[in-house]
Amino acid sequence: MLKLFYTPHTSALATRIVLEEVGAKYEITLIDFEKNEQCSPEYLKINPRGRVPSLVTDSGVLTETPALLVYLAQLFPQSRLAPIDDPYLFAEVQSFNSFICSNLHVAHSHRMRGHRWADEPAAIEAMKRKVPQTVKVAFEQVERHLLRGPWVLGEQYTVSDAYLFTMAQWMEADGVDPSSFPKVLDHRNRMSLRPAVRSALRQELGDQ
Amino acid sequence: MLKLFYTPHTSALATRIVLEEVGAKYEITLIDFEKNEQCSPEYLKINPRGRVPSLVTDSGVLTETPALLVYLAQLFPQSRLAPIDDPYLFAEVQSFNSFICSNLHVAHSHRMRGHRWADEPAAIEAMKRKVPQTVKVAFEQVERHLLRGPWVLGEQYTVSDAYLFTMAQWMEADGVDPSSFPKVLDHRNRMSLRPAVRSALRQELGDQ
Repeated sequence: MLKLFYTPHTSALATRIVLEEVGAKYEITLIDFEKNEQCSPEYLKINPRGRVPSLVTDSGVLTETPALLVYLAQLFPQSRLAPIDDPYLFAEVQSFNSFICSNLHVAHSHRMRGHRWADEPAAIEAMKRKVPQTVKVAFEQVERHLLRGPWVLGEQYTVSDAYLFTMAQWMEADGVDPSSFPKVLDHRNRMSLRPAVRSALRQELGDQ
Repeated sequence: MLKLFYTPHTSALATRIVLEEVGAKYEITLIDFEKNEQCSPEYLKINPRGRVPSLVTDSGVLTETPALLVYLAQLFPQSRLAPIDDPYLFAEVQSFNSFICSNLHVAHSHRMRGHRWADEPAAIEAMKRKVPQTVKVAFEQVERHLLRGPWVLGEQYTVSDAYLFTMAQWMEADGVDPSSFPKVLDHRNRMSLRPAVRSALRQELGDQ
């Protein structure tokens, strides 16, 4: 059975939504950041980078959200969550996921995890101050260029939608006004009505 | 014909190496960062994010290195540069590529592009100072956990090797001693002997 190492309010939500979408049997193991469990010797054996999510499969442990999302889409092909047989469309999904993990998510991370990239408290505060601007610029890319609507890829719902929805959870906390991004906001609202998303969010509440 | 928007000494090298590996017919259009061409109105029509590489295909423009690498592997299946039919192995390739784009490359970018994440010169200097440490930690992950040897995935050469080689070009400039990473150094040396890599590097020299 698949097992997901999970922390609420992290990017791991995207993988949990996709697990719900495909109807996978899986179990959750919570990693408590407040207790620094992501850096415990036991967890570092699972994921030496000390991050969530990690997905334990029959073949071994997988990490990094873009990899997990496409893996689940491949493992459950009937779900049609990634157009793997169409190289160009698949590359669009991959491009979107890469943009999220290397740009939007990184912009967001400078709010609470600035210590990754500088030691001085003043520098960490300076990074925090710029987050509303950098996250806004990233969402402008999504709004204007990447989100076709109704779903990221257009008519076909894919794993990228779960990933975007996860990032869009944090707009307000990152100091970005969702009403400036009507397509993203509409996407977030529509996502929140999907049974898989409701189930993932309901279970996340129960985890806490 | 494929067309690659390219800047020497950027991550675009990975895509050029793969174009050479698969024997694709392609042309290069240089984007000069010193003239800020990546932000020209013409280029922003190609890639609204103002980054390189961008790959113009018969179907449209693709961006983000992890997407381009897998796209080329799919477009030239006989090259066997990504194990797309084995979901777990493919997820390992994807996980590696995601780690590079969201972690190692981001760590590196704080040396010359700190202005992306803070405005104050002191904060930008503080980021720069931490780069040798953050890039080193990322290469420790590669050395200890991600690079199986002789290639990233083990015996099978994949697109991830071109991506790692590209990052390993910058170790010295990032203040990281390659001799601390014998597996990465061995990989870099072995890569530099491949005809496709030599061709890509030789042409890059000619571009300048």
